[in-house]
Amino acid sequence: MRVAFQGERGAYSELACRAFFGDTAEPTSEPSFDAVFEAVEAGRAKRGVVPIENSLAGTIHRNYDLLLRHRLHLVGEQTLRISHCLIAAPGVPLEAVRVVRSHPQALAQCEARLAALGVATEPAYDTASAVRDLALSGRRDAAAIASRLAAEVHGMSVLKSDFEDRAGNVTRFLVLAREPLSAPGVGPEKTSLAFSLPNRPGGLFKALAVFALRDLDLTKIESRPLPGEAWSYVFYLDCVHEGPRQPVERALSHLEELCTLLRVFGTYPRHDEPD
Amino acid sequence: MRVAFQGERGAYSELACRAFFGDTAEPTSEPSFDAVFEAVEAGRAKRGVVPIENSLAGTIHRNYDLLLRHRLHLVGEQTLRISHCLIAAPGVPLEAVRVVRSHPQALAQCEARLAALGVATEPAYDTASAVRDLALSGRRDAAAIASRLAAEVHGMSVLKSDFEDRAGNVTRFLVLAREPLSAPGVGPEKTSLAFSLPNRPGGLFKALAVFALRDLDLTKIESRPLPGEAWSYVFYLDCVHEGPRQPVERALSHLEELCTLLRVFGTYPRHDEPD
Repeated sequence: MRVAFQGERGAYSELACRAFFGDTAEPTSEPSFDAVFEAVEAGRAKRGVVPIENSLAGTIHRNYDLLLRHRLHLVGEQTLRISHCLIAAPGVPLEAVRVVRSHPQALAQCEARLAALGVATEPAYDTASAVRDLALSGRRDAAAIASRLAAEVHGMSVLKSDFEDRAGNVTRFLVLAREPLSAPGVGPEKTSLAFSLPNRPGGLFKALAVFALRDLDLTKIESRPLPGEAWSYVFYLDCVHEGPRQPVERALSHLEELCTLLRVFGTYPRHDEPD
Repeated sequence: MRVAFQGERGAYSELACRAFFGDTAEPTSEPSFDAVFEAVEAGRAKRGVVPIENSLAGTIHRNYDLLLRHRLHLVGEQTLRISHCLIAAPGVPLEAVRVVRSHPQALAQCEARLAALGVATEPAYDTASAVRDLALSGRRDAAAIASRLAAEVHGMSVLKSDFEDRAGNVTRFLVLAREPLSAPGVGPEKTSLAFSLPNRPGGLFKALAVFALRDLDLTKIESRPLPGEAWSYVFYLDCVHEGPRQPVERALSHLEELCTLLRVFGTYPRHDEPD
């Protein structure tokens, strides 16, 4: 089964594909998030996997925008602990490393460790391309910061694992498909949606009441100002539930009475604990 | 008055300092967000200005973490429209440009315009350092993407302004001080806070009730999973109000009864429309 992800081979999104689908997936690299959505919509890929929020960097709004623009369905989620490795060519010792390349965010997450090594740093487009470029260059005085998978893909060595200054870097990925999951699963499920409200005080409170009055718990809520429309907001919400879906369906039907916009992205098995 | 900001001279954070304080400020560059907080805490700067959310990239959680860790107060906010310029050395025509450098996020925001020019791109740590490095290099076949101020600071020319593919890139900055604003201001104000709740269904609904029951409106709400603590969340909330502060103070006192953690970061004049 072809599964589209954004980035180079060895990107953390490819790791998320493998964590979710195991060996049944054939992860296929796409140059952008847009291209992942288009690949699934056009049937070139059966599924797509995109990051939606990171515990350090926050929500990836671009993918909410694409969810609103495309008519795809969420059929799963995968949380993944992001663990950076310091990677060099085989046989290169740590002492030989003079310069380290990676995405600026990954460099920042390893700032103290890099300072302790006394090496220079250079920015790269993303973590996986830093490893690819290093492998192509043949340099033996340089290293890159990326996933262990990126090292394996390019035949490179891991000098240090868990190289980040602080643990707790977790990214949640969503699994996209053309068709929704039809039947309720066994175990806890999650329903993800976006909505807008008329601009009246207490509007959000009423919207949350449709869940609270049915004892439905929320695991995510986020407001986002609509660019160019002062005082207007879109809200992102994840609701968790188990067993028959009727209470959720009633809540969503009730919510629709209050909203100027409501999009339900899908209901899928819950996965909150990072791999 | 010294005002600390993160980044090189010409960074968008320096623009936010100038927009908020006008000519009364002496913006001083700091290497990190941590250093901005430390400069204000130690009295080396009277105020600090840090970004808290961007309409495209979302919330900057790092600065919420620093707000929780330090004991500073919010005394203002500044929203700023982020408009990228294509910048080169004086006299260099657009046709001579072969390569464009900037932060990967800025390059991505100008992707279609860059593709139309048919130029190569190279990543940089941040937008302002791309201009500084370009100025130091003396190159006449390269350009950078950054603010107009960055071009001015380094004596460079603006080849194109409003270079981003889509408008609507707005960042909200917070103004930090050692002491809170004492008296209620005239006009609308905003109060920013963070809280955690015991893990019970409907907890968030009750927390929002303390505002809704007093007709207090919210302009931001965001949940964030606490890393390493499954099922635990911190909530960020902005509440808007005008006139006497008593209803807000009562709401916060009521909220405290429900929370396991409550931090009120400050009350300050509201500024929602980007400059």
